[in-house]
Amino acid sequence: MAAVSAGVRYQNRLDLVLFELAPGSRTAGVFTRNAFCAAPVVLARQHLATNGGDARYLLINTGNANAGTGEQGMTDALHCCQALADTAGVELAQVLPFSTGVIGERLPAEKIAAAAPAALAALQDDQWLVAAKGIMTTDTRPKAVSAIVTHNGQYITITGITKGAGMIKPNMATMLAFVSTDAEIEQNLLQSLLMSAVEQSFNRITVDGDTSTNDCCVLSATGKSGIKVDKSDAGLFDAFSRALHELVLDLAKLIIRDAEGARKFVTVDVRGGANTKECLQVAYAIAESPLVKTALSASDPNWGRILAAVGRAGVPDLDVTRIDLYLDDVCIVKKGGLAPDYREAMGQAVMNQEDICLRVELARGEVNEQVWTADLSEEYVRINASYRS
Amino acid sequence: MAAVSAGVRYQNRLDLVLFELAPGSRTAGVFTRNAFCAAPVVLARQHLATNGGDARYLLINTGNANAGTGEQGMTDALHCCQALADTAGVELAQVLPFSTGVIGERLPAEKIAAAAPAALAALQDDQWLVAAKGIMTTDTRPKAVSAIVTHNGQYITITGITKGAGMIKPNMATMLAFVSTDAEIEQNLLQSLLMSAVEQSFNRITVDGDTSTNDCCVLSATGKSGIKVDKSDAGLFDAFSRALHELVLDLAKLIIRDAEGARKFVTVDVRGGANTKECLQVAYAIAESPLVKTALSASDPNWGRILAAVGRAGVPDLDVTRIDLYLDDVCIVKKGGLAPDYREAMGQAVMNQEDICLRVELARGEVNEQVWTADLSEEYVRINASYRS
Repeated sequence: MAAVSAGVRYQNRLDLVLFELAPGSRTAGVFTRNAFCAAPVVLARQHLATNGGDARYLLINTGNANAGTGEQGMTDALHCCQALADTAGVELAQVLPFSTGVIGERLPAEKIAAAAPAALAALQDDQWLVAAKGIMTTDTRPKAVSAIVTHNGQYITITGITKGAGMIKPNMATMLAFVSTDAEIEQNLLQSLLMSAVEQSFNRITVDGDTSTNDCCVLSATGKSGIKVDKSDAGLFDAFSRALHELVLDLAKLIIRDAEGARKFVTVDVRGGANTKECLQVAYAIAESPLVKTALSASDPNWGRILAAVGRAGVPDLDVTRIDLYLDDVCIVKKGGLAPDYREAMGQAVMNQEDICLRVELARGEVNEQVWTADLSEEYVRINASYRS
Repeated sequence: MAAVSAGVRYQNRLDLVLFELAPGSRTAGVFTRNAFCAAPVVLARQHLATNGGDARYLLINTGNANAGTGEQGMTDALHCCQALADTAGVELAQVLPFSTGVIGERLPAEKIAAAAPAALAALQDDQWLVAAKGIMTTDTRPKAVSAIVTHNGQYITITGITKGAGMIKPNMATMLAFVSTDAEIEQNLLQSLLMSAVEQSFNRITVDGDTSTNDCCVLSATGKSGIKVDKSDAGLFDAFSRALHELVLDLAKLIIRDAEGARKFVTVDVRGGANTKECLQVAYAIAESPLVKTALSASDPNWGRILAAVGRAGVPDLDVTRIDLYLDDVCIVKKGGLAPDYREAMGQAVMNQEDICLRVELARGEVNEQVWTADLSEEYVRINASYRS
């Protein structure tokens, strides 16, 4: 990995990150479902399809999302990839481009192309923290997680970084995240492992309900550990899959911890639904309600707003007289009405915490789903009213 | 009408409003679809069904929503209605109750029952402004509109009041609104006229996407003008229907003008959609995007955020290369990319206005839909973090 300063938007800021993947690595990716997806998203998806997972470089810039830039945006993204491919001596399709930053301005492709040789020259092992810092935009801290899976006295490493703090409601994808492992994994299995992990992690977080144009998550497997992960060894496969899920979920939660202007980390836990869809409807109605989020910001146990969000979530034939609501272990609402034992001080004590779990028991079935979100503060408004000034 | 002080939540504040309807009046209503609807909503709907539209009194309190109050809430709402019915000498079902205010606290029904005789004694004609003031909560101003429909030298009057500033995304209903006319209108026609008018007005506004537990809109027709409105006189019917639509839309817009913390009145105009559903998907994705709303608050022509909202709205097979975006008459985006003639100063000039129209041309069909919303300011967060303190 390397991180260098290309001057995309600001001078003297690490804004260009390069990953070199070992020959023979396999790479899988998931991308935003926003119809206005950015040029680098279109191109990275094309290149992955062309090279069949045989990517050698991930080229990531901050400061400019290259989104809403039309044909010119595609030309600019191609230009950056071609410059790197030429210098490194690989095929164009082996370079995957990623961009994040302001939407709707032309990417300074010349600056990125000019910085490509410096990035290649700066490549070093074990630069995860530098890379994590290099992909930050409004993030206040780098986000990186690593895990080890042991197997017959040997071990596999999985490490990932991510960025994101606002415009966060990934849809089948995420803000930028880059994960790699030294396991050997066949391409189709790698893609399905990634999709499954992302579905339960990045696709379960929301800061503001705004799905980005540039969300991407890639998973690379270098095979350097010499250990092959496939379904023939169910024990190893399960251990790897579980470790990957946990790691990707930890990355997703780091985004919520760093949500713009937020002071709270909130788990919305909807239990006893008839199916996943209705659990998520309820969870997102709560997690995206400005009234619930401002109450959280004020540490106000305003459970009426939570019930109001449950009630408007659109669950068919919802029997509100069966619903219980908990703040952590404090039962506030029992069977649709105020719990007899509840006292305001009990809810207030939970609300004063930084970490809060809002649990809704629907009593309609056996399905449980969680999403994670943050509070809505005056600081969020200040940040987003002044960003792109 | 009368407005008196019952001391529901605060002393010496007009918090109880009473409408007396002339004998023979017909009353229609639409109510919130929030599953956690309040006790008075359940009861008002029951009473309208029981009396077949023959309501004589509308009893409205502020300071307490009587929502999330379970069986006790129903008992309390019944108690208020019964006290008024007994004093006035009418049937219980001829009294329709309405409540607005804090959710989840027990309604002080005794105070309201005790104030019923005073409210009856205070009844006077032409007290619309007093009534409009009496139903305010976080509203900064009373909201009332009146219209006249002329017919063969005679005239029909339609007058309405409403309240609401936050927790605004009516769903087949609205925050409290009370409209009446001296036309004579048969019950089923009255109900269909109301539903049609509400669908194009209160059901097209959003402040924060939070549908209230207490939304109600009622329309009463007293027949006092001696003019009967029905479909046998198509000219009169159309004139009345049009005037009603305009009046209810004006009331809905007054709520947006008074949205909590807002400085902007924003029309989101989505044109050229294949159907109403997709136009509204796009319109609400924009109107409820925290990133678009904070940009509006900062008067920032941040069109990238608008495109990102369009892109995530979930319209199937959306061809982004056909989309145009306008701020008032300024074209910012042409065929999915920045319009060649656009200069930042042009967008800035529109954004500096109080009234702004965001127009999206989808170029997929012939359907146009509008919704109305406001910006998201630090003041909104401040109000909703401190309310119910």
